[in-house]
Amino acid sequence: MKELREAIETLGRAAGTNVVKVDMFLNHRIETSLLFRMGEVLADYFRDDHPTQVLTVESSGIALALTTAHFLGDLPVVFAKKSPTVVQSDDVVQAPVYSFTHKCNNMIRVDKHYLPIHSNVLIVDDFLADGQAASGMISLCEQLDCKAVGVGIGIEKGFQPGGRLLREKGVKLKSLAVVEKIEDGKIFLAPDDD
Amino acid sequence: MKELREAIETLGRAAGTNVVKVDMFLNHRIETSLLFRMGEVLADYFRDDHPTQVLTVESSGIALALTTAHFLGDLPVVFAKKSPTVVQSDDVVQAPVYSFTHKCNNMIRVDKHYLPIHSNVLIVDDFLADGQAASGMISLCEQLDCKAVGVGIGIEKGFQPGGRLLREKGVKLKSLAVVEKIEDGKIFLAPDDD
Repeated sequence: MKELREAIETLGRAAGTNVVKVDMFLNHRIETSLLFRMGEVLADYFRDDHPTQVLTVESSGIALALTTAHFLGDLPVVFAKKSPTVVQSDDVVQAPVYSFTHKCNNMIRVDKHYLPIHSNVLIVDDFLADGQAASGMISLCEQLDCKAVGVGIGIEKGFQPGGRLLREKGVKLKSLAVVEKIEDGKIFLAPDDD
Repeated sequence: MKELREAIETLGRAAGTNVVKVDMFLNHRIETSLLFRMGEVLADYFRDDHPTQVLTVESSGIALALTTAHFLGDLPVVFAKKSPTVVQSDDVVQAPVYSFTHKCNNMIRVDKHYLPIHSNVLIVDDFLADGQAASGMISLCEQLDCKAVGVGIGIEKGFQPGGRLLREKGVKLKSLAVVEKIEDGKIFLAPDDD
């Protein structure tokens, strides 16, 4: 997506060989017009899959999930909550999300009333790296007999395995920008597929 | 605000004498059309104060901050991050936020580059109870020589002191709904002032 590529190229910063720092427009400061445009593109891509809910995980997925939901006709958004431990409640379903950064499992959870059985769920997140968060959200959908109709991502780190793993599972995945590699402090983006 | 009152009256649940549970439309599941309408009303209220940035705190303030910013001409949103400890960095400013629920201080922080000096900052949050989060965000603005032009809130718990404290300090405050009391499992709302 052109506008996102430009934002990454002009404002993004690389750290080491692994970190894409975009907190000036995506996940600390939010460039509102860009987030709306990103949501519009994801909505167009998944419209024919007839999602009835958008699911994300707090915090930095919320903005993109909300704008995507808006362009799909103001669908409801559910954001999974994070906690370091299992929450004891019959009202929630949970899934572990392994953090490679912190080398530990966190749990994500949703109240089961907010993803009704047989919902068509579009999963949205700001980043895709190892695919742990997306896989956790797919697990939440499966536990609730919902259909995960696709995964929409802001920035995919193409040099980490999440995208490949999801595609191999047959998940319909759309990443608005794919970082191919980080080298000498520079971010290299894959060509757009659209 | 009529639509928010109706949502609280039909979907909100009281717990004890203190908790207003609205996570089916505000802070776990998000009713997207309602959040856009709430943002539009806050934007109209604060437009003449000429905000240049919207500041909130993760996670559940993000949706309302984003829609408010959208109706103010797609202003940038900054969401303060929470952490249990002081972060060591010259790039951030921080403020303590006391949690009456958990009886401890948390820190909120922003990267100082994202609230430029002399910005006009509109503070937005989903809830106002004791006013700790709002006061913490006002402190962040003061530390960065920004002007907090006002505080826009989804639901104010009028029986807790946050609203009164902010008004006594001369802060321009708009709450879209005010809960007067919770009694016998029922939520009582104050009359709208508009």
